[in-house]
Amino acid sequence: MNGSIKKSAVVLLSGGLDSATCLAIANSEGFRCHALSVDYGQRHSSELIAAQNVAHAMSAELKTIQLDLRAFGGSALTDDIAVPEVAGEGIPVTYVPARNTIMLSLALAWAEVLDAGDIFIGVNAVDYSGYPDCRQEFISAFENMANLATKAGVEGKQLSIHTPLIDLSKADIIRHGTKLGVDYALTVSCYQADDEGRACGVCDSCRIRADGFAAAGGGDPTRYKST
Amino acid sequence: MNGSIKKSAVVLLSGGLDSATCLAIANSEGFRCHALSVDYGQRHSSELIAAQNVAHAMSAELKTIQLDLRAFGGSALTDDIAVPEVAGEGIPVTYVPARNTIMLSLALAWAEVLDAGDIFIGVNAVDYSGYPDCRQEFISAFENMANLATKAGVEGKQLSIHTPLIDLSKADIIRHGTKLGVDYALTVSCYQADDEGRACGVCDSCRIRADGFAAAGGGDPTRYKST
Repeated sequence: MNGSIKKSAVVLLSGGLDSATCLAIANSEGFRCHALSVDYGQRHSSELIAAQNVAHAMSAELKTIQLDLRAFGGSALTDDIAVPEVAGEGIPVTYVPARNTIMLSLALAWAEVLDAGDIFIGVNAVDYSGYPDCRQEFISAFENMANLATKAGVEGKQLSIHTPLIDLSKADIIRHGTKLGVDYALTVSCYQADDEGRACGVCDSCRIRADGFAAAGGGDPTRYKST
Repeated sequence: MNGSIKKSAVVLLSGGLDSATCLAIANSEGFRCHALSVDYGQRHSSELIAAQNVAHAMSAELKTIQLDLRAFGGSALTDDIAVPEVAGEGIPVTYVPARNTIMLSLALAWAEVLDAGDIFIGVNAVDYSGYPDCRQEFISAFENMANLATKAGVEGKQLSIHTPLIDLSKADIIRHGTKLGVDYALTVSCYQADDEGRACGVCDSCRIRADGFAAAGGGDPTRYKST
């Protein structure tokens, strides 16, 4: 890549551990990163504050789009459905209908305006195998569709969707991000964090994160609510 | 189809002539219609009022989602770019980046919550051949992606995206809708209609609509601004 003129990329940034690592990877690959955060009515708005802090720490432009998915309902992350402490079989109630499809569509719109041919998303098929829209076959189908959807695609410019974390374990993600200088204290993973970004320590996402730090052998900077 | 229990469908409704006809077709095919309108910051908010009137006239539930695409820029329909009076070559400046991808993604989310396997969109490849996201190959790629994106798809339920207008001329759309009882006086097509829904008469969309009514041989109920 030419060092003087960086290629632009749109990076979906939730404020969680995975997307922060994904942004660091996009940065390390030499892209000029435009981070996109979506305020979709998630219960944990501390995620959005975390996204701001992470983007700032990595000198990425951040755009936050308002899109209230609560209008549709159907998820424990946006509705008054209890977040379970133990994962059940199949697709979890924390799944938000069509979330990644919507997020990638918004990223596509911004990429087209920026004339950017690269989108990064921190999906992971290992820990979230219950989410259909975290699988590579979904991402590939989206990429194919996106190349038919846009002016850039019609003009022959290929859009690539990068999923650098898709096959990594949580421990590998943490190790990789730590090498790249990610400050995980800024990130929030908990499904029901409080306004200060302190985690519950009992939801699926908290357990996966804590196990990841334990397996990575590093200190866990997560701040927990006092119980 | 079982007459007592109707299948649900999500129908994208902009308030224009095409989507009103599309809703009438979905109704006529026996679907229980859930109309989805998106307030994306379009300059002509009279479209949204038209969508309400059309949905009401056809007894469809209407949901309007706020999503401000002006945040991305890049279109004469959302920015301060002049709407041209004569179509140029290639993709028009009235193209909104990734619009149909985003609209279909939102329809997909609602369809998933409703457990609906059918989405209707009034895209037309004849009059809008310059828009990449109005082509059948885009729609087919979206349908393929959607079936990999969702819980329903994983469980083996097929989602279908219906494009009943895709190959019709504007005159054929108007003839078909008229037979189905569509009140076109309720619809707004103009790219720069005023708050009362009165059309400019000179933009691309106005010309195509006027030519369509002339070719269909019916009276044109469009209300024009006084000049």
